[in-house]
Amino acid sequence: MARPIITLTTDFGSADSLVGSMKGVILSIQPDAEIVDITHKVMPYDLLDGALAIGTAYKFFPPRTVHVVVVDPGVGTERRPVLATAGQHYFVAPDNGVLSMVYQSEESLTVRHITSEHYFLQPVSNTFHGRDIFSPVAAWLSKNGQSSAFGEEITDFVRFALPKPKPAGNGVKGVILRADNFGNLLTNLREEDLPQVLAGSNFKMRVGTAEISRLAQTFGNGGPNEPILILGSSGFFEVAVNRGSAAKTTGAARGAEVTVEFA
Amino acid sequence: MARPIITLTTDFGSADSLVGSMKGVILSIQPDAEIVDITHKVMPYDLLDGALAIGTAYKFFPPRTVHVVVVDPGVGTERRPVLATAGQHYFVAPDNGVLSMVYQSEESLTVRHITSEHYFLQPVSNTFHGRDIFSPVAAWLSKNGQSSAFGEEITDFVRFALPKPKPAGNGVKGVILRADNFGNLLTNLREEDLPQVLAGSNFKMRVGTAEISRLAQTFGNGGPNEPILILGSSGFFEVAVNRGSAAKTTGAARGAEVTVEFA
Amino acid sequence: MARPIITLTTDFGSADSLVGSMKGVILSIQPDAEIVDITHKVMPYDLLDGALAIGTAYKFFPPRTVHVVVVDPGVGTERRPVLATAGQHYFVAPDNGVLSMVYQSEESLTVRHITSEHYFLQPVSNTFHGRDIFSPVAAWLSKNGQSSAFGEEITDFVRFALPKPKPAGNGVKGVILRADNFGNLLTNLREEDLPQVLAGSNFKMRVGTAEISRLAQTFGNGGPNEPILILGSSGFFEVAVNRGSAAKTTGAARGAEVTVEFA
Repeated sequence: MARPIITLTTDFGSADSLVGSMKGVILSIQPDAEIVDITHKVMPYDLLDGALAIGTAYKFFPPRTVHVVVVDPGVGTERRPVLATAGQHYFVAPDNGVLSMVYQSEESLTVRHITSEHYFLQPVSNTFHGRDIFSPVAAWLSKNGQSSAFGEEITDFVRFALPKPKPAGNGVKGVILRADNFGNLLTNLREEDLPQVLAGSNFKMRVGTAEISRLAQTFGNGGPNEPILILGSSGFFEVAVNRGSAAKTTGAARGAEVTVEFA
Repeated sequence: MARPIITLTTDFGSADSLVGSMKGVILSIQPDAEIVDITHKVMPYDLLDGALAIGTAYKFFPPRTVHVVVVDPGVGTERRPVLATAGQHYFVAPDNGVLSMVYQSEESLTVRHITSEHYFLQPVSNTFHGRDIFSPVAAWLSKNGQSSAFGEEITDFVRFALPKPKPAGNGVKGVILRADNFGNLLTNLREEDLPQVLAGSNFKMRVGTAEISRLAQTFGNGGPNEPILILGSSGFFEVAVNRGSAAKTTGAARGAEVTVEFA
Repeated sequence: MARPIITLTTDFGSADSLVGSMKGVILSIQPDAEIVDITHKVMPYDLLDGALAIGTAYKFFPPRTVHVVVVDPGVGTERRPVLATAGQHYFVAPDNGVLSMVYQSEESLTVRHITSEHYFLQPVSNTFHGRDIFSPVAAWLSKNGQSSAFGEEITDFVRFALPKPKPAGNGVKGVILRADNFGNLLTNLREEDLPQVLAGSNFKMRVGTAEISRLAQTFGNGGPNEPILILGSSGFFEVAVNRGSAAKTTGAARGAEVTVEFA
């Protein structure tokens, strides 16, 4: 019997004891759980950043993994807690759109409003549902595998669209979704948005102070301080600098506009 | 049989290989251990910050969990290593007060001076007892469950009191204990220190540049940039800003004075 | 049966979901793996820093541990992936020298060029071999224990020497290898480089703006703001300041020169 896996994705950082408390709650209910941190450094309150973190990582985990996602600026308000069964994975999260990229990726989708309070850690605080609701629900779910026990199915769950590229002039206009640890700039442009680039057409990409006209296979193909375009491992095009930081070189950050023009 | 749990709380940060070495030592002795990081970002050398980290998290773990706490500016000096049995938990730490909040919370308490050197990793360095003493002792303890094997009971162990609120004018004076990842400011004021506030009396709290007169149920009830008072999930009142940082808004940080006045 | 241990050492940081994806891949193949993070904060692209991280930590893990080390500026280029059997440990890494300190420490050493692509996660990306090659190879290796299944032995693997101390005047000249979380400055000087210091001779060490003439047993023996010399727990001499930061006090950082003179 494989150990049940529970992943955690939050904006709690790693300096506080919040994540430790969540793990204690999980292990008190489900001592066999293998708990895996995806990241706790989602930008505070940032639903898009959280959606990207879980959306790019979950599919590498085995079937029946339970993913706990807590980016929850509305904790303690009317926003609902939800349990989603999406493809072969489970997700426990606030109903605020943080699962949008998961919803978009999976055809088979059931979302439930978690209402079975006897699974909660009592008394439930107003400010830390990660510990009092999401963790114990994930732990109980990994024990009993009965998602229907946690509440009724809903169809009006919250979802948002990732920012979509738009046609612009002879090309397309996109946006920087985030910078990674190396300063690589993740755009919202996917393979299907720039087929000409992949086919070898000349292009001119503008982002921050930089103009880029070269698609490279990998980071090491770039010259010193040369911003290059890469088709990244998560399926999005990225701007990168070999052994450097594209964020620094271009001056661009999350939210910056990216334009691509063809001759 | 549930796997034995060993938690780690240190000020070692996550950039060095110190924590990795500790985990290697633990797993070499006790391969079944489930090792859980509470945090490694206690402020360097800061016993109060360490006491708060373990003090707010330990009680969410199952009985018989072994908690290793290493905030240890006196490593290699005369300060003793201790093993505390407190309530249903074990703690392995330097005898410098870092377990003070645990000592304060648990009525059933036995503290031993760890002297059984055959459990140590030899040779014991002068500067890294986390690896050479605390980790192996925790691992052996989780195997044999015999705390009495590690040394004699002592009663003169080091403990300090958390800073206590004081009466001031018509109200009370407290202090900011720490800022969390969101910039929420944790005060040393608990429910019993401000019963009037919970009962609905008018109050005026001053912290940094801010004056606060509103108790909110949760973060989301605050207006933009409005510092509000919250009864936090760890039992302390907190100053918070909805989707913002109270630390930035008020300019207050650890050690800042907080005053509460009633009309 | 002890659980198979797989450690991870990377420069990926903890804010992205890269490490989470690697863990998912490992657990999909080897659900029993105990995955241990050594650090993900190796300085980006820095092979020496990576070599030090794994080189100082691996020996504390049990025999047959599989260590995954991904500091990989040349990902997707001609650089080879390697599997090293060194002493009683396994290492999976790019062939760029990041295992140099391991190679230097172990007499029994076999290095293989990983070529068995059926163990890879398909399709293999050009930019994330941590996920697509190193993680699955580590997971399969921990299952089958057959290092020979992954490729042919090579002898021209890449290794570099750690910067070596040099004689200078009446003494020796070294370099700061890194600063740790406390600001302690790790030098490249070992016990055998400064036997006179350990024997009690007078010495004068210069690093940054500081002049040091005192060897202390441990941090706590230093006065306020006094930089002292310590024989650190990893076998290198370190410059430290009791309850302070030697990096701040001396103004020295990685790469700074250190000189030691004897009277």
